[in-house]
Amino acid sequence: MYIHQVAAYLPAHIVTNEHFTRLNGLSHKWIIERTGIQERRKAGPDENTNTMALEATRRVLAQAPLFPQQHIDLIVGATYTPHDTIYTVAHAVQRDLDVADIPVVSVSSACSSLLNAIEIVEGYFAMGKATRALVVVSEHNTAYNNEDDTVAGHLWGDGAAALLISKERLAPTDLRMVDLITAGAGNMGKADTAVTLKPVERGIVMPHGKDVFIHACQYMARVTRNILERNQLAVTDLNWLIPHQANLRITRNVLENLGLPDDRAVSNIEYLGNTGCAGAAIALADHLDQIKVGERIVITVFGGGYSYGAMLLER
Amino acid sequence: MYIHQVAAYLPAHIVTNEHFTRLNGLSHKWIIERTGIQERRKAGPDENTNTMALEATRRVLAQAPLFPQQHIDLIVGATYTPHDTIYTVAHAVQRDLDVADIPVVSVSSACSSLLNAIEIVEGYFAMGKATRALVVVSEHNTAYNNEDDTVAGHLWGDGAAALLISKERLAPTDLRMVDLITAGAGNMGKADTAVTLKPVERGIVMPHGKDVFIHACQYMARVTRNILERNQLAVTDLNWLIPHQANLRITRNVLENLGLPDDRAVSNIEYLGNTGCAGAAIALADHLDQIKVGERIVITVFGGGYSYGAMLLER
Repeated sequence: MYIHQVAAYLPAHIVTNEHFTRLNGLSHKWIIERTGIQERRKAGPDENTNTMALEATRRVLAQAPLFPQQHIDLIVGATYTPHDTIYTVAHAVQRDLDVADIPVVSVSSACSSLLNAIEIVEGYFAMGKATRALVVVSEHNTAYNNEDDTVAGHLWGDGAAALLISKERLAPTDLRMVDLITAGAGNMGKADTAVTLKPVERGIVMPHGKDVFIHACQYMARVTRNILERNQLAVTDLNWLIPHQANLRITRNVLENLGLPDDRAVSNIEYLGNTGCAGAAIALADHLDQIKVGERIVITVFGGGYSYGAMLLER
Repeated sequence: MYIHQVAAYLPAHIVTNEHFTRLNGLSHKWIIERTGIQERRKAGPDENTNTMALEATRRVLAQAPLFPQQHIDLIVGATYTPHDTIYTVAHAVQRDLDVADIPVVSVSSACSSLLNAIEIVEGYFAMGKATRALVVVSEHNTAYNNEDDTVAGHLWGDGAAALLISKERLAPTDLRMVDLITAGAGNMGKADTAVTLKPVERGIVMPHGKDVFIHACQYMARVTRNILERNQLAVTDLNWLIPHQANLRITRNVLENLGLPDDRAVSNIEYLGNTGCAGAAIALADHLDQIKVGERIVITVFGGGYSYGAMLLER
């Protein structure tokens, strides 16, 4: 299967670190040192998870004359910050596209669900139940975030991305999906309490950030090695690494663990913060033009709860 | 693929129609006439979507010596009433089972997501990425419901079910999955507004119940016919129909449309209310012993948002 096109949507409003200095006394320097985050985006009052997904979808379709919307035969949405759990992000996209009678589902494995969504697409392709899929990943973190939370309130940003995926190659520039691994790690560490979003009780909280940090570093490095090894590749065969965009220190730790230089990682955490399951897809969208023919990319993710995964792509 | 075992969990606390008479002035007779609902269950203060799913999982595993928990290689959860969108219902089950490094994901297509979850399993089986799956469906409607809502407050109940699904037959009594159809209908009618659950703004509301009613009746009857026809079966070849348990009038309308007698449908709406995506699975669990060898069952679902589907099983 092939990723034909990717596009992102980011809300216009920028929230700088100075906002949190005023609010909570956290300095720009302190936030940068601990997270790498300089600024993040915040959805407008008329925006939400569903509207951002629609914008990303319109953009990706505008870039893809070979993938007309009426050919879409599967929609998988992903978010842990739902606008509506009944009229889900995938259903909102279906309505906007007006494509009838195709499988439509929304998923969550927190920040790792980009890869879960793509693996579900892989399953539909394997069954012969679909050949052209739209995956939308969208997070409205600021709808659930408590800005006053000095532990994690400054981490989160909003954004969305959409990917067009086809069973057969449509263009020479398509990214071939060589391999994909996803897994839950709900049985590990403090997965049940470390970072949670309980809509009824409260929003996003991260009382055990250190546990998340340690597991994110370990799992993203390990699964990246695994996917390379089982495809007879060495770390040196990798041209680009797109990790989940949670924290620049996690990204650097994963690079160091793998023995990769800093410039091999694609990063948007500096100006977007943690955009959840959308982060790696936004990074792929932004980096797409810089990937040369023959180059290999690994997207590796880690999500609260916990979950992890890796996808090996080749242009 | 085969459904090996199914089990349900229902909270102990019963909420009768008299509760809503006291609260909102709705009479027992009025509620029964419009919905068929006599009572429903309400989760206790220490219960939630995740704990109910754990209970259903423990029960189904206790019934299934041929399907030990360490053989589970895929967990798919479904709910539109999440306790936690990060530590999702599927991750909670993974933690309880302590099964490491297997795909784990939670999904929502509202009340229809039992079949979406099973179709995702079908995909993993087709890819060769799994052979023994656990599907858990769990709804904590009362966590999001507004009891004072005279339109829909009396409809919802809590409950969960767990299904053990294997690629190969494990026992002569396993239900063979002959065929499965799922689809979104987000582009139809008032799918975007008819019934919604926006966690940040408000809980479950159903301002356009009539639109839901009409589409539920049409889609469940149509997709049941479709799945029978494409398997060269007539409605008379069907022994049992398990529709989504939303409203007894919808069930009767679907039966009438299909030309099936009342006693062909399996129903728990009378004593459970609308238990969302868990409803049809709870009905299957309760009815399992009454399905004879050679008999055919269709489970058909309709969800807000909208979504629909049908699954043809044979014992």
